[in-house]
Amino acid sequence: HKKQRTDDSSDAVDSTTDQGCVGDADPNFLTTFQDFEVVRVLSNDEEHKAVVVECHKLPFNTEKLGDILSGGTTLKTLFQNDIYYNKTALVPPELNEIKATVIYPAEEKHILRHEKQPSSFIEETPQLYREVTQRFIQTSAFSKEWIYNILDHKKEADRIVFEDPDPDCGFILLPDLKWTGLQMADLYLQAIVRRRDLTCLRDLHASHLPLLRNLWDKGLSAIKEKYGLPAHKLRVYLHYQPSFYHLHVHFTALSFEAAGKWAGKAHLLSSVISNIETCPDYYQRVTLPFTLKDNTPLSAMFEEKGQS
Amino acid sequence: HKKQRTDDSSDAVDSTTDQGCVGDADPNFLTTFQDFEVVRVLSNDEEHKAVVVECHKLPFNTEKLGDILSGGTTLKTLFQNDIYYNKTALVPPELNEIKATVIYPAEEKHILRHEKQPSSFIEETPQLYREVTQRFIQTSAFSKEWIYNILDHKKEADRIVFEDPDPDCGFILLPDLKWTGLQMADLYLQAIVRRRDLTCLRDLHASHLPLLRNLWDKGLSAIKEKYGLPAHKLRVYLHYQPSFYHLHVHFTALSFEAAGKWAGKAHLLSSVISNIETCPDYYQRVTLPFTLKDNTPLSAMFEEKGQS
Repeated sequence: HKKQRTDDSSDAVDSTTDQGCVGDADPNFLTTFQDFEVVRVLSNDEEHKAVVVECHKLPFNTEKLGDILSGGTTLKTLFQNDIYYNKTALVPPELNEIKATVIYPAEEKHILRHEKQPSSFIEETPQLYREVTQRFIQTSAFSKEWIYNILDHKKEADRIVFEDPDPDCGFILLPDLKWTGLQMADLYLQAIVRRRDLTCLRDLHASHLPLLRNLWDKGLSAIKEKYGLPAHKLRVYLHYQPSFYHLHVHFTALSFEAAGKWAGKAHLLSSVISNIETCPDYYQRVTLPFTLKDNTPLSAMFEEKGQS
Repeated sequence: HKKQRTDDSSDAVDSTTDQGCVGDADPNFLTTFQDFEVVRVLSNDEEHKAVVVECHKLPFNTEKLGDILSGGTTLKTLFQNDIYYNKTALVPPELNEIKATVIYPAEEKHILRHEKQPSSFIEETPQLYREVTQRFIQTSAFSKEWIYNILDHKKEADRIVFEDPDPDCGFILLPDLKWTGLQMADLYLQAIVRRRDLTCLRDLHASHLPLLRNLWDKGLSAIKEKYGLPAHKLRVYLHYQPSFYHLHVHFTALSFEAAGKWAGKAHLLSSVISNIETCPDYYQRVTLPFTLKDNTPLSAMFEEKGQS
């Protein structure tokens, strides 16, 4: 059972490994996939903990193109027509790295999130939000420990790009897990708000405009200062539904084919601000359409309400 | 001057090679990039002919995942937080081929077509719409002959999937040129409204709700009836900016990675309806952000207004 996510040329696989349980402070864990067996079934055997490995192919590093287009790369012709040649190229591994994000040990919810699944559109009215999504948020025991670790500087403090400590409008900006930090072309940062009462778009109204404008102004300034990318070269958005219910904003380079930038998922921060300026309770009144994987607990709850 | 096309993780580079001119029947031409020098300037020297090399990273081959996740792949940890590990992987070249499309000898027109054009975000206020976009629409001599040919059944009449002839709320639904009509997985249709006074989103207000609801209801019914795809498996949206200024709606299968489905381009029809229900003159009041290629006439007009 190998899963392919086509939206970002990545693969997430469920695997087991018979390596022993490792302490969470061990960065040397997993230096090859030796002894990996690609399976789907979760095992309760203590010696076989589930691992999610999500692989991404990185954009070409323009700094390395001269090295790729050199004698170290072997070409094979598939076909040729007049001046057009179709070839495959074997590139030295260090010039063609892939990114692997690993979750270990992984729970069922991690696996479900990463499986490729068909999606459906949900047209979420405010009533459906209250009856389904809000109930889902309140009843699901999402762990936010990792978020609070970041906010409290217990984890990832060395990765913080910018911080505004204000309790109402403040946030922490740091690279997304998916970004190596090496190329501007696929820059991907996340701003996590300090306040802990806001879960998602649906919570936002006029009183949050100072926070939203602060995220926009200071987030963009910090990125311009540190990475040299101006506002018009960035896509700044929130997800709905988000992957975790603590308000956060994505900042990606326009040149980056980010996962989840499509309509029905991404909501541009400047539009969120404009919507609330135009209608103070916009997000308590509109229907929000979004795509949802058909195998998620939330989609099951919507299906009970006749939405499918 | 190396060019990167990020929309499909490809690179097209202009190069010269001092290999001699080869007969066009020689499939063994170019087995490495030995002696390549990456330059931009075209050379008229007969011994230095221009070559366009466009590289693409291919999606993961699910058949090879088991080989990739094996001892032959080396992993390095970038960082780790709790159960999450961020790693880079060096994969054997034969498991991580790239695709190279070569044009040799290449002319200037090939080079221009393959050059990457960056985009920028424009935050279009209603004032900017009036001063730039509306002026652009009114002064540019867009030909709509091909649209009126369809509406008048002079062209493409045999491709019409559904038609509502009502002069106010009516429209014609037909396959997009990009869709072969062969696979439901990449279904792509367009609905072109009959009335000729509406150019784009900015024109829409409460009086157009019957038209918009008619597009939604009858468009979806027609697609369900003819192709078997229900509403929740379709993405229904308008573009802003559109490729032509006569109101039209895109209907694509959710499974289709349609060009132009991202936030900042696609506006879901159900959201357009909900926005106008919530605020009758929503599209005359909000800021609409969109991406624009930096080398287009419209982007030049925005740049004159200090938007870049």
